[in-house]
Amino acid sequence: MIYLDNAATTAVSQKAAEACMFAMRSCYGNPSSLYHFGIEAEKLLDFSRETISGAINAKPEEIFFTSGATESNNAAVMGLASVYGKRKRRAVVTGIEHPSCLEAFMRLKEEGFEVAVIMPNKDGLITEDMLFDSVDENTCLLSAMLVNNETGHVLPIDRAFPRIKKAYPGCMLHSDCVQGFMKLHINVRTLGADVISISGHKVHAPKGVGAMWIKKGVRVRPLLVGGGQQGGIRSGTEAVPTIYAFAKSVEELRGNISERYEHATGLKRLAEGLLRDLGCEILSPECGSPYILSVHVPGIKSETVLHFLESKGIMVSSGSACSKGKKSRVLTAFGFSGNVADSVIRISTSHNTSEEDIKALADGVSEAMKSLVKIKR
Amino acid sequence: MIYLDNAATTAVSQKAAEACMFAMRSCYGNPSSLYHFGIEAEKLLDFSRETISGAINAKPEEIFFTSGATESNNAAVMGLASVYGKRKRRAVVTGIEHPSCLEAFMRLKEEGFEVAVIMPNKDGLITEDMLFDSVDENTCLLSAMLVNNETGHVLPIDRAFPRIKKAYPGCMLHSDCVQGFMKLHINVRTLGADVISISGHKVHAPKGVGAMWIKKGVRVRPLLVGGGQQGGIRSGTEAVPTIYAFAKSVEELRGNISERYEHATGLKRLAEGLLRDLGCEILSPECGSPYILSVHVPGIKSETVLHFLESKGIMVSSGSACSKGKKSRVLTAFGFSGNVADSVIRISTSHNTSEEDIKALADGVSEAMKSLVKIKR
Repeated sequence: MIYLDNAATTAVSQKAAEACMFAMRSCYGNPSSLYHFGIEAEKLLDFSRETISGAINAKPEEIFFTSGATESNNAAVMGLASVYGKRKRRAVVTGIEHPSCLEAFMRLKEEGFEVAVIMPNKDGLITEDMLFDSVDENTCLLSAMLVNNETGHVLPIDRAFPRIKKAYPGCMLHSDCVQGFMKLHINVRTLGADVISISGHKVHAPKGVGAMWIKKGVRVRPLLVGGGQQGGIRSGTEAVPTIYAFAKSVEELRGNISERYEHATGLKRLAEGLLRDLGCEILSPECGSPYILSVHVPGIKSETVLHFLESKGIMVSSGSACSKGKKSRVLTAFGFSGNVADSVIRISTSHNTSEEDIKALADGVSEAMKSLVKIKR
Repeated sequence: MIYLDNAATTAVSQKAAEACMFAMRSCYGNPSSLYHFGIEAEKLLDFSRETISGAINAKPEEIFFTSGATESNNAAVMGLASVYGKRKRRAVVTGIEHPSCLEAFMRLKEEGFEVAVIMPNKDGLITEDMLFDSVDENTCLLSAMLVNNETGHVLPIDRAFPRIKKAYPGCMLHSDCVQGFMKLHINVRTLGADVISISGHKVHAPKGVGAMWIKKGVRVRPLLVGGGQQGGIRSGTEAVPTIYAFAKSVEELRGNISERYEHATGLKRLAEGLLRDLGCEILSPECGSPYILSVHVPGIKSETVLHFLESKGIMVSSGSACSKGKKSRVLTAFGFSGNVADSVIRISTSHNTSEEDIKALADGVSEAMKSLVKIKR
């Protein structure tokens, strides 16, 4: 199998899986228990907070574990608006966010917030100025993702956020960093964000675990309430096995972000060249994340290409996995016509991807085009 | 180690752990992906829904996976009140619920609901009539747990709920069944509830997974929104490894509920006898869950007994793990004086517990009493 859908989910690394196993079988105490066996489990959480915070230059006490990016995005958006939106009743989000972020803003709208949506400009970009100009004195929250999950567009939040913070200190800034975490260098001390969301299963940890980084001093009304775990910010017995696995995977990845970035860049350039030669159009921007490549295969529906490639053992996605084959809202937002958006595949690599995998992909696409494109002459 | 804190959390069974491993390493596709490798992951979810629904006589499509009991309780309480509480603005909860249920009701209060709390009567009981009488025409929601996590009290919801439903069909009924699931026979078709909450890590599955059973036709406003997974009721990529592990553990347990119940009953009777002979007072009711035994060890603080027993390799809890050593709200609600509640340990067994374990516990308590009780003559 050639797995080129790492933006949808990833294989859990051996070390992460072993860590999960260890916590399930040998260190299964409740981290809230008072005896040593519980404290051992709590130590795994301490290690996890330490490791994950270290990877983004955060403090361990700024990390809060969740069940994944959906919970992190929901909790961040609703939790920040709840605290900081009592008087400032305007909230802003980009139109290319993940549904778990956009839908949270729809909730804010139901609660009476004025919600503004930033759409990409004619060049298909959301610029620093567009982000800055979207905020005003009455805005309590702006959410903008770091890397778009369908195209790999990198938003200039590291430039826009500090500017916004300076001009409007009362505007809270959230970023869904799921597709950037452990792929780009993220330094929360200079990013300008107040809260970021990250996910385990996009970085070779199990599904069902994620985290929020919440800048010290920033208040987020808890989405889940109960036993008061994690300082009351996120109640519920901590999912020690998957949290520890998450940390073990981050530990493996944090030392080689640059090397993996270069590897991914090489693969992206190779794929771009081969696919362009076949007559495909590259929709991902030149300067986007090298891990994601959105490709227009002219004349064939996304799902048809997907299943053709699948028959060759190659897994790619049509749009994002979350949309289950529905027409991509994001590609339309980026200005691609319905015709183009209907014939797009997403290729997303990891450090496990080789040049041979990309060549096999190109061969597959070539074959698909030869056998499937309707001759329109 | 003699682990007698199974109400706090349990060891993950070998089969459940292996299932988790399989999903992490070999079947790691995104269940929303359109290719076969994703569908394989979806099949693990189908199996899981089938297995878990089968254990409570539910339909597979009535099972919704969550990150655990805290999320299930939060989502049930807030989600039901949101749909059914638009005109009926009164909600009722017992005073002996888990914090994740009680705190959710506190949220309802903040939203303007009138919240009534049912406290145990002078005999330390919440009776069928008390539950029935708590509801009126204006009540949108009643939440009452099946088995109390600190004392093992079993509430008569199987008698009260159908009566309430008949008299007040507009009142939604929720039960936190975490400590009853796979320990008592639960039949959702006769229980009378609309929604129940269950948890994985109390039944030898990993932490970080739980479920809601939502009766067909009952509407719950989603707590987590986003990609629309699980029919939109609970968005977020499903945590396939822990969900599958949950199901595998249930599969192991569902065939021997009665045998395990008898085993637990034998252990409870043994413990009661031995501990009473030492001068301890049994706080758990005769007819409660056999898996939980709350014991007053006169003259020694809970934490002191706990650590003394720990030094002998025996793990018990002071109150519940969630309360982290704080004075038990539940024991006070049951009418035990602060003095008694300060000197209580909770013993909670599983099918892995043996008579020898209970004897070792009694020896440990005996030794603790001899060496630690202050002589008051």
